[in-house]
Amino acid sequence: MAGSTFGTLFRVTTAGESHGPGNVCIVDGCPSGLELSVDDLLPDLARRRPGQSRIVSPRKEDDTPEILSGVFEGRTTGTPIAILIRNQDQRSRDYGDIKDKYRPGHADFTFDAKFGFRDYRGGGRSSARETTARVAAAAIAKKLLHATHGIEIVGYVDQVGELRYTTEHPEQVTLDQVESNPVRCPDPAMAEQMESLIKQVRKEQNSVGGAATLVARHVPAGWGEPVFDKLRADLGKAMFSLPAVMGVEFGQGFGVATARGTGHSDTFVPAADQAPPITTATNRHGGMLGGISSGLPIVLRCAVKPTSSIPQDRPTVDKHGKPTTIATRGRHDPCLLPRFVPMGEAMMALVLADHMLRQRAQSAL
Amino acid sequence: MAGSTFGTLFRVTTAGESHGPGNVCIVDGCPSGLELSVDDLLPDLARRRPGQSRIVSPRKEDDTPEILSGVFEGRTTGTPIAILIRNQDQRSRDYGDIKDKYRPGHADFTFDAKFGFRDYRGGGRSSARETTARVAAAAIAKKLLHATHGIEIVGYVDQVGELRYTTEHPEQVTLDQVESNPVRCPDPAMAEQMESLIKQVRKEQNSVGGAATLVARHVPAGWGEPVFDKLRADLGKAMFSLPAVMGVEFGQGFGVATARGTGHSDTFVPAADQAPPITTATNRHGGMLGGISSGLPIVLRCAVKPTSSIPQDRPTVDKHGKPTTIATRGRHDPCLLPRFVPMGEAMMALVLADHMLRQRAQSAL
Amino acid sequence: MAGSTFGTLFRVTTAGESHGPGNVCIVDGCPSGLELSVDDLLPDLARRRPGQSRIVSPRKEDDTPEILSGVFEGRTTGTPIAILIRNQDQRSRDYGDIKDKYRPGHADFTFDAKFGFRDYRGGGRSSARETTARVAAAAIAKKLLHATHGIEIVGYVDQVGELRYTTEHPEQVTLDQVESNPVRCPDPAMAEQMESLIKQVRKEQNSVGGAATLVARHVPAGWGEPVFDKLRADLGKAMFSLPAVMGVEFGQGFGVATARGTGHSDTFVPAADQAPPITTATNRHGGMLGGISSGLPIVLRCAVKPTSSIPQDRPTVDKHGKPTTIATRGRHDPCLLPRFVPMGEAMMALVLADHMLRQRAQSAL
Amino acid sequence: MAGSTFGTLFRVTTAGESHGPGNVCIVDGCPSGLELSVDDLLPDLARRRPGQSRIVSPRKEDDTPEILSGVFEGRTTGTPIAILIRNQDQRSRDYGDIKDKYRPGHADFTFDAKFGFRDYRGGGRSSARETTARVAAAAIAKKLLHATHGIEIVGYVDQVGELRYTTEHPEQVTLDQVESNPVRCPDPAMAEQMESLIKQVRKEQNSVGGAATLVARHVPAGWGEPVFDKLRADLGKAMFSLPAVMGVEFGQGFGVATARGTGHSDTFVPAADQAPPITTATNRHGGMLGGISSGLPIVLRCAVKPTSSIPQDRPTVDKHGKPTTIATRGRHDPCLLPRFVPMGEAMMALVLADHMLRQRAQSAL
Repeated sequence: MAGSTFGTLFRVTTAGESHGPGNVCIVDGCPSGLELSVDDLLPDLARRRPGQSRIVSPRKEDDTPEILSGVFEGRTTGTPIAILIRNQDQRSRDYGDIKDKYRPGHADFTFDAKFGFRDYRGGGRSSARETTARVAAAAIAKKLLHATHGIEIVGYVDQVGELRYTTEHPEQVTLDQVESNPVRCPDPAMAEQMESLIKQVRKEQNSVGGAATLVARHVPAGWGEPVFDKLRADLGKAMFSLPAVMGVEFGQGFGVATARGTGHSDTFVPAADQAPPITTATNRHGGMLGGISSGLPIVLRCAVKPTSSIPQDRPTVDKHGKPTTIATRGRHDPCLLPRFVPMGEAMMALVLADHMLRQRAQSAL
Repeated sequence: MAGSTFGTLFRVTTAGESHGPGNVCIVDGCPSGLELSVDDLLPDLARRRPGQSRIVSPRKEDDTPEILSGVFEGRTTGTPIAILIRNQDQRSRDYGDIKDKYRPGHADFTFDAKFGFRDYRGGGRSSARETTARVAAAAIAKKLLHATHGIEIVGYVDQVGELRYTTEHPEQVTLDQVESNPVRCPDPAMAEQMESLIKQVRKEQNSVGGAATLVARHVPAGWGEPVFDKLRADLGKAMFSLPAVMGVEFGQGFGVATARGTGHSDTFVPAADQAPPITTATNRHGGMLGGISSGLPIVLRCAVKPTSSIPQDRPTVDKHGKPTTIATRGRHDPCLLPRFVPMGEAMMALVLADHMLRQRAQSAL
Repeated sequence: MAGSTFGTLFRVTTAGESHGPGNVCIVDGCPSGLELSVDDLLPDLARRRPGQSRIVSPRKEDDTPEILSGVFEGRTTGTPIAILIRNQDQRSRDYGDIKDKYRPGHADFTFDAKFGFRDYRGGGRSSARETTARVAAAAIAKKLLHATHGIEIVGYVDQVGELRYTTEHPEQVTLDQVESNPVRCPDPAMAEQMESLIKQVRKEQNSVGGAATLVARHVPAGWGEPVFDKLRADLGKAMFSLPAVMGVEFGQGFGVATARGTGHSDTFVPAADQAPPITTATNRHGGMLGGISSGLPIVLRCAVKPTSSIPQDRPTVDKHGKPTTIATRGRHDPCLLPRFVPMGEAMMALVLADHMLRQRAQSAL
Repeated sequence: MAGSTFGTLFRVTTAGESHGPGNVCIVDGCPSGLELSVDDLLPDLARRRPGQSRIVSPRKEDDTPEILSGVFEGRTTGTPIAILIRNQDQRSRDYGDIKDKYRPGHADFTFDAKFGFRDYRGGGRSSARETTARVAAAAIAKKLLHATHGIEIVGYVDQVGELRYTTEHPEQVTLDQVESNPVRCPDPAMAEQMESLIKQVRKEQNSVGGAATLVARHVPAGWGEPVFDKLRADLGKAMFSLPAVMGVEFGQGFGVATARGTGHSDTFVPAADQAPPITTATNRHGGMLGGISSGLPIVLRCAVKPTSSIPQDRPTVDKHGKPTTIATRGRHDPCLLPRFVPMGEAMMALVLADHMLRQRAQSAL
């Protein structure tokens, strides 16, 4: 397992670099009979794309996906679905600088340490360009989850630098609220402040970190495995597999460190209108108990670092260890969060689709 | 993959419930030729065991492991190593209460939702008793990592409730410091305060959360895979697979949300005495860049919730959704953190041993 | 994946050597709610055991299994089922001979080449003793297949040396016929001849090969995957994973080499009483088309070599390559076939149980 | 695991149907630093292609592969290598006949039984067109095996109908001999007879089966795992995953059924010029003992059925079970064997490359 496949039953394998011919994903294990066309892939690819707004990288990427297999007469056939997204922005440039120097905070050095050499053009395989393939694959997962269980996955930015948006009810945030502004913060006033901060940071030739919350509604109770493949564990892995994620927390999260047992455990209460007729009065547990979904909304939060690509001269070393300086010029996001939202949603969808199929396989006789 | 196997090449499969005959692990993939005996398993099992100190559960568990296979004339043979740890504490008691009622914060309800029924004795498969098998398996991983690369893994408690211990140099904390007190906090004064808090919480029939830091020293640069199986992703999954973990962060962690790019990225500097001759001046990145180890110490931190087992009467429902009350009497830890440390170290060791073998397989020609 | 786990969803992991403390299997992925007790494991273990008849090894192995987990109140819980079978026959003997010399046809040399050294007592991990764990695990698979689909798996010996039993209707052979004689050939007259041949071969201090047919009835149409994980491919792997199997064929088998298209393809015909209402008039295809089950009985055949353990002095080399001689004294089977039958059935059951769960997961929406 | 991925460490995932836009493979796990270009893929694709000679299907397929990722400046980077081979022959035709009727011997019925419907154009995913992706992936595996160990893989046709070619020394057959005639039988006289038979069968609107032998030379001793993942088991699975394979045998194969122990086991003898200095005098074992390579050539043989596509009217049923007739008109191979050779070699190469990496990972400390 060389690390480019994700999932056990709903399996996604990706390939591609930022400046090679294209990015590819193969989705294996999607049940037959799901209506699917290229149009289903476009919205999330557009949400992930650079150049979508005034506060993200102005880079132009024309993410037109082509479905190469696995769909016939508008429905999935049960065989693997391959999707190709060609890279458009391959103009030749001078990479002399990053070819031999290590950009601080980037994977240049560790790729060389691992592989002996690397495709240095635009980050190669470590570029966020790689997430196009994930987002395309996850559009299928989202559709499968919605078609079979009505599951909705919504992410939003809740922090940019010191600006923090909080809500008692993350599960009530809607996609419309999120998409109403370029920051993807559901509170318009806060979104405006965040946008100002992002613009200011860009003007200062700097970048800023932040955080995003991800919610999945209508996940039935009973998904996830008891020990190593807890739903929480697989979601955690999924989030940490995304570039720049430095922290993940579920429900009350790091707040549990100061909690007392009496103040943390959510109380079970009757819920006459659902099966099983049981829910909890609060959702500090974030929708999973013992790693298995409880029927409550799944709520998690990711901390995303400020992009390491900033156009200031900074000290570093070259590949022989000799001191030098480098500036990452180019068209980078001053804040990764707005474009992180669809990436986080994508990984959440992949995990849930996988566990949906696992539960189908292993549910009680 | 039903969720009881962890790892790709250094693979651990576990089985066992808290009140069945015993817990078992099978470690498959350990290279041949590693010196190994039962004695190597005992120290970490003792650190994990209840009854080890005045601030943990007084339950008696006699964790005597038996190696059933895979070791011959004192060395691993390359074939799977099975370890059996019998459960001693199986005295019959009246489980009537937890048989039909759902304990708040526990997995009783979600297990029923998933499987239709459950082994309700002492938590069954969701009991922390299950981690004995992990800790035994990980003792082999630790030995392998140390024998081949001199890797050391040390965890410590850095927070109990509001009491927080911080250090500029988590990588300098020693096992001796950690084991010098029952809390497993390296600062003796802080450890004493934490112990007082834990005792007070117990007296109040309550429990308290906290956090622990885990460090791996001497991991070479180049371990981990670029995309889905980032070392960070696999470590994140490993930690979230442990009971009660609600948050995980690496390096600067959630602190990155307020960081600027200039203040986050660690500067590369020459390091004449190592190969490659490159390191970073600081370690805000937590030892991984792009998901691949950088040669710096790996540093992560876990938030652990207060145990849900508290001896107070609390409202809940029974399995039909009827309101009732329950108190979890028994011999529970008022704070999980002291015993979490060896569990966290264990999961860290399993991930690193797996990626060590993966790097052996896939390193450059 | 170090080779001791089999299956994707119905997963079996085994450990154990012939002369260590015991053999273990962990069955992960069995759905909850299947009635199971130790008694379900005994019949096939007895059929596999040495000492069961006058024509197999007279070795005494007391295969008493202990279920360590995963079963509660007589039913599977959905958590992993661990089974321990202790080795009884561990009397110390002088292994000096096989310690340093390579027995012809055995794995002594290749184990040393792979691992650098080996547990030489009785074959260690390469001993057929290892199959006890598989047979125990497969008893669960058989029960699951029968409880959910009425599937029956029956194997029988169809060849011992030159003696060959053939039938137009392998799918009509019953377990009673097979178990009516120690050879496990359903034809009593042929069984007697085979028994005579086996006894004669033993008298000559030699061994003899043979073949066995395995049949699975009532497997529904639609199991198996189109490409790499064809049902045929997974069954083929399963059979070749058993000791001494040198050939596997399905349906018409090697007979297809001389066939013409007109004489091979089975004609589809209506089958009013089943769903889908379609079957084939003949079963030269062996129950799978395109690697997917057709609803016809699955029929395969395995060639099993004569055991390499014969008590005659033969030339060989020691581990330094120096010529010497060796005789494998001990209590060996003069013909492996009678005891191969339950092993073959076991592997067939494991594959089918796995694909049953896979089909549950991935069947059409 | 939905069946479109093969291998543990050298992992190939494929997608594609015969009449969709194209076939894709992603090769994940190839170590970095292997010289690779599109030219390396062409020879085996040409050997697999229809239209290559007067005795295979005259269909035109322009198998021009495009490498989409994983190669930089002429060398593999260690990241996944995606290869796209577009389908050229997608002219629209009338599929009315095979849309609703089941062709005898084909997977039409079983695909419908599994998935509920199918891409009926030209066999869809069950078409041999799918093997283009395998052959392209395996060209990389072959190059890796040769570059690191000098391993050579050669297959040849040894049987067409009643015509059988045998040799005492399959390991001495050369690629030049095989490629000297369109049948791919190394004996020119026999090849001519086989060619005549194939032409006659085609004239009779029929097809004919056959068999092929596959040899791998210079595989070092020690590859393969002791139990489930025996090299023999993985090779067996690989072969049975190819279309039309109904039997597989290793070394002496089904001949072992009539063998005596004294006549089967190969005698170990000194081999001064190699390490370890040990070999066997004969190779009835086919290059593996206990599932682990012995250093002798690996030799296996596959029986391949006559293609089920013959242009004669034959009785069958439609998808509702109603009797009808069908003739598979089109441009089919009267004998699959000549084109089977590169497919068989491909699967052998994938298995060996995988076990090469596994041995790298798990070899003795």
